[in-house]
Amino acid sequence: MGDPVRLLIHGASGRMGRALLRLCAEGAVDCSVVAAVSRRPAQRVVDGVPWFAASELAGVPAFDVAVDFSLPEAFGPLLALCRQRRAALVSGTTGLSDAQRQAMAEAAGEIPLLWAANFSLGVAVLEELVERAATALEGWDCDIVESHHVHKQDAPSGTALAVGAAAERGGSTPRYASLRAGDIVGEHLVQFTGTGERVELVHRATNRDVFARGALHAASRLRGRQPGAWRLRDLL
Amino acid sequence: MGDPVRLLIHGASGRMGRALLRLCAEGAVDCSVVAAVSRRPAQRVVDGVPWFAASELAGVPAFDVAVDFSLPEAFGPLLALCRQRRAALVSGTTGLSDAQRQAMAEAAGEIPLLWAANFSLGVAVLEELVERAATALEGWDCDIVESHHVHKQDAPSGTALAVGAAAERGGSTPRYASLRAGDIVGEHLVQFTGTGERVELVHRATNRDVFARGALHAASRLRGRQPGAWRLRDLL
Amino acid sequence: MGDPVRLLIHGASGRMGRALLRLCAEGAVDCSVVAAVSRRPAQRVVDGVPWFAASELAGVPAFDVAVDFSLPEAFGPLLALCRQRRAALVSGTTGLSDAQRQAMAEAAGEIPLLWAANFSLGVAVLEELVERAATALEGWDCDIVESHHVHKQDAPSGTALAVGAAAERGGSTPRYASLRAGDIVGEHLVQFTGTGERVELVHRATNRDVFARGALHAASRLRGRQPGAWRLRDLL
Amino acid sequence: MGDPVRLLIHGASGRMGRALLRLCAEGAVDCSVVAAVSRRPAQRVVDGVPWFAASELAGVPAFDVAVDFSLPEAFGPLLALCRQRRAALVSGTTGLSDAQRQAMAEAAGEIPLLWAANFSLGVAVLEELVERAATALEGWDCDIVESHHVHKQDAPSGTALAVGAAAERGGSTPRYASLRAGDIVGEHLVQFTGTGERVELVHRATNRDVFARGALHAASRLRGRQPGAWRLRDLL
Repeated sequence: MGDPVRLLIHGASGRMGRALLRLCAEGAVDCSVVAAVSRRPAQRVVDGVPWFAASELAGVPAFDVAVDFSLPEAFGPLLALCRQRRAALVSGTTGLSDAQRQAMAEAAGEIPLLWAANFSLGVAVLEELVERAATALEGWDCDIVESHHVHKQDAPSGTALAVGAAAERGGSTPRYASLRAGDIVGEHLVQFTGTGERVELVHRATNRDVFARGALHAASRLRGRQPGAWRLRDLL
Repeated sequence: MGDPVRLLIHGASGRMGRALLRLCAEGAVDCSVVAAVSRRPAQRVVDGVPWFAASELAGVPAFDVAVDFSLPEAFGPLLALCRQRRAALVSGTTGLSDAQRQAMAEAAGEIPLLWAANFSLGVAVLEELVERAATALEGWDCDIVESHHVHKQDAPSGTALAVGAAAERGGSTPRYASLRAGDIVGEHLVQFTGTGERVELVHRATNRDVFARGALHAASRLRGRQPGAWRLRDLL
Repeated sequence: MGDPVRLLIHGASGRMGRALLRLCAEGAVDCSVVAAVSRRPAQRVVDGVPWFAASELAGVPAFDVAVDFSLPEAFGPLLALCRQRRAALVSGTTGLSDAQRQAMAEAAGEIPLLWAANFSLGVAVLEELVERAATALEGWDCDIVESHHVHKQDAPSGTALAVGAAAERGGSTPRYASLRAGDIVGEHLVQFTGTGERVELVHRATNRDVFARGALHAASRLRGRQPGAWRLRDLL
Repeated sequence: MGDPVRLLIHGASGRMGRALLRLCAEGAVDCSVVAAVSRRPAQRVVDGVPWFAASELAGVPAFDVAVDFSLPEAFGPLLALCRQRRAALVSGTTGLSDAQRQAMAEAAGEIPLLWAANFSLGVAVLEELVERAATALEGWDCDIVESHHVHKQDAPSGTALAVGAAAERGGSTPRYASLRAGDIVGEHLVQFTGTGERVELVHRATNRDVFARGALHAASRLRGRQPGAWRLRDLL
């Protein structure tokens, strides 16, 4: 397996950031967190991890991959740092502007890079299966039903839209329904209905850790890859 | 069991009417069809069943129960006939006016009467279970997802609304989602979501005959009952 | 609501015991933990809760309800204490001997008492719904499919058997299938299949806390009840 | 589309044979039934289709594809006829001996040939998706639950075993559960369970016609292909 992958956790105080640090500490992947970057803290060490404020970004030690779940305003400096250091970038930050997406596309000429709306392995597989099913089940109706907790604001979910895009690549025109109930972590049902038969593809996340785990998994596999815009499914 | 119940099939040329006649011929319940009433035909006999035009309604022989899946404009004369003959009435005719519903309520003072949006036994049980669950699961979110074939025009389905009314009687405020796909006969999912757990109640109809079968079942059990507005669930 | 219910947590170091203490600290119910009893610790205070060793049981302060998730060998002294103190008892301890069950039945003549295989509210509701469905859907086939994590030893699960007993009270003869996969917390599907239609009743637990939460909920509602062997569903 | 494909229906009096003839008459595919072969009938014409007894097989007119849902004892002569006439063969006959399977493999050197346990398009797609999912979801648990009507004798179903074989090709070791209830046409659930997430792939057949329709679909696409042992999924 080689040396542990050296990680920079960006957005370390957020919900995903905390989950990433906890899973790294638990040894979920073979890694070493060399820097945790958060908006507020001046440099210090928590649980053996050196923390940096966003303003101190230039001073972080050498790392292989940055794992980023932060906010759009913090994205630009991190992307610049990764290009400068020739480090890989895994990002799940949402709300990026078109200019930021464009900058990311350009950076992909120099560093390996992965952006995804959802980092669970299961959803990555689901997308691939949905595209294949849509291709094979020409003319069948395609419906996507997604369920999330009541605090989720957007509908359909970004994941549902990504899955729907996979269906469209296969030639289907999906319709969407969204349920918001209780504390559902995230469920996506893609249903292809023909005459007298039906194929249903379902993903159920029951624990938020799957997303953090998937991002770490991707980070460990992105190290040392060719520059380019990688997709999660390419790293499976 | 006593004598076979004598049935008048009203709306005999329609999809439900034809299914009712076929199931009676197959002996699905212990009955005798003494008259099939349809808009067009002058009196004749088909497969041993005497057919009457709507205009000949007054001339039908004695019957115990009228089973009606016709159109609103034909409902008034049939209701009058049942009152006059002191016969029971089972009806699934949709689109009745308020005045017609009022007339039905008045008739319930004289004859046993059952109107339902859905005659499957399973849906009748579902309604009862949903009301009980809604009562017991106070504060849980309630969502209803119904799926039907692409030719169904109305959404949510009448059945979904009836199931939702049961949830409301139990104190829930259901939300609705509707899917229209392929040739789905009819599926209703009622989902109660709490914190860390969920209860799902599902009904799947895979064959349209269940509705005709349920109506005949109800008819055979409505004969000889007290006058009143019966519900399908009371006849189970 | 009156004063907070005073709880004795018995088996406080176990997985359920720790969850109970955490939820009490988080205010899941209006309660005050007056004693945590565990096999090993001599009396001390952790997070504001006085801890007692099993051998010190006689010295615990006054409490309203004991909540017990321990081992059969510790059950007898706790039952005796509850009778002596005229306190209620909620227990989910499994593996009790016939003699212990007999002792529990006798104690129910003096104190309010609840023993259950599963303390989620959803499962309690499921049992009730299954009994009602089985009664109404006479002659339909009944199948129970339960899914749990790969570490679960027994099959069918105690909950599946309890749900199956409810189906039997309703006149059905259930068949069982058990899946053991991943880290599934617990799912129970009860399926009633007729001709051309089907009713499915499902419970999904996605977080183990639901069981601890249910036990606390039951405890708070058992205080002040008449002596007797209560069922979870009676306390909903 | 070219000329209508000329079909020989072998096993024409059986349940599948009758469904094939009905669907051909309804124009489900662009075909012409030039011969219906059944054990008993001497040559005659029913609904425009010439019928032949099995003993008259040598005398049937020219055909492009034989569609066979018969019995093992009738299989040999049909295979010989197809080789002699250089016609394609689609077969769903079960219970073939090893010798018959060997003969079929040899015939595939001369004629295009398709044998399948299940002819629904949805199941063919399911098999492909399952193999892909099993490959991508390494280390996840794989469970297959199949449900059929109470008259089905074998368990697990041939389709479940075929789907399981697809999972095995992808590296999984599936476990099976079988439900027999009511008049379920056929349902197959393949569940991949990881840590904190799950992928479910489901096929539901609600109408037996899907199998006959799939066989005709395959037959129309097998005409003019290279000799070989084709799989349904290759013809999608």
